[in-house]
Amino acid sequence: MVNSNRLDATFAALADPTRRAILAKLASGEASVTELAAPFDMSLPAISKHLKVLEKAGLIARGRDAQWRPCRLRAAPLEEVFDWVAHYKRFWEESFDRLDEYLKEIQKERKHERKK
Amino acid sequence: MVNSNRLDATFAALADPTRRAILAKLASGEASVTELAAPFDMSLPAISKHLKVLEKAGLIARGRDAQWRPCRLRAAPLEEVFDWVAHYKRFWEESFDRLDEYLKEIQKERKHERKK
Repeated sequence: MVNSNRLDATFAALADPTRRAILAKLASGEASVTELAAPFDMSLPAISKHLKVLEKAGLIARGRDAQWRPCRLRAAPLEEVFDWVAHYKRFWEESFDRLDEYLKEIQKERKHERKK
Repeated sequence: MVNSNRLDATFAALADPTRRAILAKLASGEASVTELAAPFDMSLPAISKHLKVLEKAGLIARGRDAQWRPCRLRAAPLEEVFDWVAHYKRFWEESFDRLDEYLKEIQKERKHERKK
């Protein structure tokens, strides 16, 4: 059972496009704060604030090297999000099934009308 | 490509245990506000506020019947979360693989030590 507070913190951390972009960047390897700030029109303190949110949520870890302190992705909370949302899979699959049935029904009706 | 604002709204809506519990309840069928409020020690206005957040994020839809207005789950935004997070799957699978390798390595070393 996933800790509910942890899911709260993970979802809150993910509810920001800059923080999601930082995670996407870290998916290709660890990076320094300066490297992470580069693609964004943002000050280093603003980026650092986002990194603190991600670190608190356990989504990134930071190196101990005082000079460089590289950030790297930590995937455990993402797996918890995956497990949580996967429980609802049948709902979006069902809605596609229903749409599919509906389209087939329409096709059948059209064929029927053409025959008349 | 998923709209980034929509993902923001979805993640923000999911960052609350009451709202996640409401979705879990709706997974077993549509329900009225009174039915949804029952398991929580919360006033109807407080529950209504949560429902508004979920509705704005497209996670629930509400019936038009003025008397009853049942809520039901809408899964499309959850599918977007699933698709987003699934991109990171290799990271948690990799970390399990590495843990697995590490444990095998330890076992091998122990066997080796016993033989000595």
